[in-house]
Amino acid sequence: MQIKEHFRSHLLSLQNTICTALEQCDGKAKFKEDIWERPGGGGGKTRVMANGNVFEKAGVNFSQVDGVVTPAMKTQLQLSGHYFYATGVSLVLHPSNPFVPTVHANYRYFELYNQHHQVVDAWFGGGADLTPYYLWEEDARHFHGVLKNTCDEFDSSFYPLFKKECDRYFVNKHRNNECRGIGGIFFDHLRGDEIRSIDFYRLFTQTVAEAFLPAYLPIVHKRQLLSFTKDNKYWQEIRRGRYTEFNLVHDRGTLFGLKTNGRTESILMSLPPTVRFDYAYEPAAGSPEYELQKICEMPRDWV
Amino acid sequence: MQIKEHFRSHLLSLQNTICTALEQCDGKAKFKEDIWERPGGGGGKTRVMANGNVFEKAGVNFSQVDGVVTPAMKTQLQLSGHYFYATGVSLVLHPSNPFVPTVHANYRYFELYNQHHQVVDAWFGGGADLTPYYLWEEDARHFHGVLKNTCDEFDSSFYPLFKKECDRYFVNKHRNNECRGIGGIFFDHLRGDEIRSIDFYRLFTQTVAEAFLPAYLPIVHKRQLLSFTKDNKYWQEIRRGRYTEFNLVHDRGTLFGLKTNGRTESILMSLPPTVRFDYAYEPAAGSPEYELQKICEMPRDWV
Repeated sequence: MQIKEHFRSHLLSLQNTICTALEQCDGKAKFKEDIWERPGGGGGKTRVMANGNVFEKAGVNFSQVDGVVTPAMKTQLQLSGHYFYATGVSLVLHPSNPFVPTVHANYRYFELYNQHHQVVDAWFGGGADLTPYYLWEEDARHFHGVLKNTCDEFDSSFYPLFKKECDRYFVNKHRNNECRGIGGIFFDHLRGDEIRSIDFYRLFTQTVAEAFLPAYLPIVHKRQLLSFTKDNKYWQEIRRGRYTEFNLVHDRGTLFGLKTNGRTESILMSLPPTVRFDYAYEPAAGSPEYELQKICEMPRDWV
Repeated sequence: MQIKEHFRSHLLSLQNTICTALEQCDGKAKFKEDIWERPGGGGGKTRVMANGNVFEKAGVNFSQVDGVVTPAMKTQLQLSGHYFYATGVSLVLHPSNPFVPTVHANYRYFELYNQHHQVVDAWFGGGADLTPYYLWEEDARHFHGVLKNTCDEFDSSFYPLFKKECDRYFVNKHRNNECRGIGGIFFDHLRGDEIRSIDFYRLFTQTVAEAFLPAYLPIVHKRQLLSFTKDNKYWQEIRRGRYTEFNLVHDRGTLFGLKTNGRTESILMSLPPTVRFDYAYEPAAGSPEYELQKICEMPRDWV
């Protein structure tokens, strides 16, 4: 089986596994599926659930698109082939309880072809990152720990490298370089070379994708029943404002999708369900909200 | 008096007039003023009020900045001088009652200088546009009518031209070219020439700026006491999502400010106080919400 078919079939099964686990965890909401086609080639399977016991809004999207490399793709993604193929699963979960963190993950594979449809480049990318509104350090250590252990099975240099990439990417530059959350891992352009085949990176990407549920769900179970106040919810909505700003102003995937006629509703499923934008909001010094903000201002090592 | 001093002093007085009228209209909230300095030169006077009887969030900002034209300005604004001067008033009002429209207005003046600090270019820009959540056609006719009458005092070609510019600019391209609202006027690069001096355009810009209150306030008075339901508020928050998308993805002023180290809190005062992002939200066919959406999909002539 070709790499892309192998990975694609893993992604479809991953989408099912994750959706089943999330529905089970939620106990109330069910995913609604929208199957869509892309005019230029390919399409996707978007799954969103809303207003659950645990998840206020959750999207787990599969897509597989292919076609001609457009001028916009050349400029924005710096791609040099004639045709492309891209497949991935992308998920964003927004819990309603402010003590349960928001999480994002994405696993993808890209192929580029010349005018004779021969593969000229191919790579894997992906990652997972956590955005808490209140922080228990044990949760941060757990999330990063699972990702590190999984990376270490492949190469002990991966976790430190991909953790740093993540801290560099999810940054609101217009907010004094404040990070969106407490990070995780982020990797891109993992290509086969003389030492390691592209299949090594396929296996790596699939394995970290499978680590998503064990990295995240135990944190949900621990925090989902904690009772919270209106003030806690208010703070969550303020921070969701920062999430919205990052996704709409800085996120390359979102902007690329929106500017190249991607399926808007699938791309913007990442936006939080309810959001507040207050002028010059500042949490009281020393409060748990203030502590969370300080943590986002300066990425730390968690494991 | 130089053009820029003349206009700057008009803007400061305009900011006072508008803030006084809005406080009077609101009857509860008061503007809070933040005076700030720009590291590269100049600064501003940001005024925001929140949680009033009428206005959930309202910002009326003055700024006057100057300095060296940076590479980012060259690229994003296509400016070719060595030094610049820019002054303007920018306002966004988000009423809490969904039957009262959101409004945005901006009036600005730009000068460019060569390395010997001689003026090489100068122009006025600005406009005002309305974003209703429910539409009374008489309100649209009133708003556009006041702007048209004001424009007509100067040149009968202005209103149709600037109305079209407005309809072209405030568009969510990623939402099938849906307009942000029902428009108004938008003009830029109004330069003096052999027929009309730059002072003609200063007077024009000041005069349309003075038309802002009579264009908007009568609509507020008419609608502010209408009682509304949770569903009306829900719809307002969904449409505020579109407002957020436009401002963060497409608005040149916002993006330019954020990417060139502008004062983030002053720039983002434009974002609505509370917002919802639902997946694939669609109003029921034939409902007033649906009608509003249809109107935004296809700009109309109102006068």
